[in-house]
Amino acid sequence: MTEPRSAEQAPPAATADYDVVGIGNALVDVLSSESDAFIHNLELAKGSMTLIDTDRAEALYAAMGPGIEISGGSAANTMVGLASFGSRVAYLGKVSADQLGHVFTHDIKAAGVEFPNPPVVDGTPTGRCLIVVTPDAQRTMHTCLGVSAEFGPAEVRTELVARAKVTYMEGYLFDRPEAKQAYWKAASTAHDAGREVAISLSDGFCVERHRPEWLQLMDDGIEIVFANEVEICSLYRVHDFDTAVERVRGHVKIAALTRGPEGSVIVTHDGVIDVPAHPVDHKVDTTGAGDLYAAGFLHGYTNGADLTMCARLGSLAAAEVITHLGARPSVDLRALARRELAW
Amino acid sequence: MTEPRSAEQAPPAATADYDVVGIGNALVDVLSSESDAFIHNLELAKGSMTLIDTDRAEALYAAMGPGIEISGGSAANTMVGLASFGSRVAYLGKVSADQLGHVFTHDIKAAGVEFPNPPVVDGTPTGRCLIVVTPDAQRTMHTCLGVSAEFGPAEVRTELVARAKVTYMEGYLFDRPEAKQAYWKAASTAHDAGREVAISLSDGFCVERHRPEWLQLMDDGIEIVFANEVEICSLYRVHDFDTAVERVRGHVKIAALTRGPEGSVIVTHDGVIDVPAHPVDHKVDTTGAGDLYAAGFLHGYTNGADLTMCARLGSLAAAEVITHLGARPSVDLRALARRELAW
Repeated sequence: MTEPRSAEQAPPAATADYDVVGIGNALVDVLSSESDAFIHNLELAKGSMTLIDTDRAEALYAAMGPGIEISGGSAANTMVGLASFGSRVAYLGKVSADQLGHVFTHDIKAAGVEFPNPPVVDGTPTGRCLIVVTPDAQRTMHTCLGVSAEFGPAEVRTELVARAKVTYMEGYLFDRPEAKQAYWKAASTAHDAGREVAISLSDGFCVERHRPEWLQLMDDGIEIVFANEVEICSLYRVHDFDTAVERVRGHVKIAALTRGPEGSVIVTHDGVIDVPAHPVDHKVDTTGAGDLYAAGFLHGYTNGADLTMCARLGSLAAAEVITHLGARPSVDLRALARRELAW
Repeated sequence: MTEPRSAEQAPPAATADYDVVGIGNALVDVLSSESDAFIHNLELAKGSMTLIDTDRAEALYAAMGPGIEISGGSAANTMVGLASFGSRVAYLGKVSADQLGHVFTHDIKAAGVEFPNPPVVDGTPTGRCLIVVTPDAQRTMHTCLGVSAEFGPAEVRTELVARAKVTYMEGYLFDRPEAKQAYWKAASTAHDAGREVAISLSDGFCVERHRPEWLQLMDDGIEIVFANEVEICSLYRVHDFDTAVERVRGHVKIAALTRGPEGSVIVTHDGVIDVPAHPVDHKVDTTGAGDLYAAGFLHGYTNGADLTMCARLGSLAAAEVITHLGARPSVDLRALARRELAW
């Protein structure tokens, strides 16, 4: 286990061309608003992410009402959020040379994110995520990975990872052996270049599936972990948030733990900082709340903010994204941060 | 010229399986929010619809910011609005067996509209409409027709047209010779079955291009015409709305003329009815306002409402659709009409 560094320090100061490079499943979201009865009747796991195959996706899509298509993917959303704050970011992911791949590529580039992976021409479709939004603004996700299931070490551009202050990887990606190899390749490249690595635990089910490996990754020196209350408790198999906080303290340099309306808790070797959530008038769709929290946090972190400001930037971005459908910001986050937080 | 019938009478009362069948270009909309400078710099024709080829579409798309994809198409939007009011509707249009065609087909069927045309497997993509929304909520549209350019008489299901009280056709469709043949085939089928035909003039540029033919169609017995102020003035080449009203009076059974925030004017042989617009708190995107006005109007018309109520239903649906991005209703219009108009 590596010795945790002082948390209030910025990431290693060596010149970097990117603030953050993100790695994840490149998906286009298909969102429809449905009743709770819909969730119940189709026996969906409300609030979580479930991987599904093409047949199941077709059946679920057929049951869903008219939809809206918006580019998504957890780490991709985070990179778009970072770009909206003005950070220099790149994204690694795999799409196909089809219409949805074209949409994904257009949208992430139009948001100001460098996306060097060319689309794949092998007939496997671009991944999509069917998202059912219920009246309580909760989102229930079903991902059909498509060509993103082929993401592996070949897609990891080491020259790019080595030039980013932080390499950020979503937990969702950590599933098949090739994707895990990509993970390790990216993490070791970043560390060899004196950079830092951040992961998001993504989902309670993901944690259940990968607990031993994730604990090992944290032992081996991941610097920053993003998780919500359920995920961090599940990771340590504890029922109490405070116990989870004690466990994660010292395990990684920084743990940024989100608690929905109750704000977030930043845990470092030096202490525990409680930061309230940014107020929200009217939640519409919580898709992307965690992704955008990570965006705001990492924007602050890679630009010299103290940890309280990092958390406030995260909360601000999360608050914005839940006021509308879709997991990407609908306003310029840099202007919002200036106005709301004088950042 | 056929003798106009009494306007306050409902359409012919013979049993019909559909209230309305709509015919138009089947498109998926790609919407992005842009500044007025964007419109200016790219020399776009603000507020209108321009047909573009694939190269121009790629160039424009590349310039646009991140987008949202929502099924569209003028007459398709109208049919979805009618279905949301509880009307029995069908739609005729042409999509390809690609991802956007799949999205279009899913969305219109999920909205409760019968859509019998199977997707085409010839490699031509489904049509899309690139829509730039400016801060004043105005929409500027660029349509790349794709496979919809191949719509022709073969797509007109006469057995279906003959069973609808009203056949509704968008002016946008009336462009290539095959589409015009489809128009005439549908109109004569409807009339032979004792049904009525409605058209929308769609766009000022469309009117400029097709004025003599459209005047001829009206001479030949189209029952209902939808137009906004610009379109109806352009049709008769007059500069004054009141003069246009005088010209259209008696030319068709019913002209439903929309004037944006000033409401609508229903012109029949018997008189002219002024109906105020439904109040709107905050316009976001006027895409689909005319389409949804037609939906509300035709819902009332085919269900025995008087003309004032038809116009109020139209204004209500238009008011709903301009409060959010996209040209299809985001709420149940039947419930909205019950609440707002006690209909």
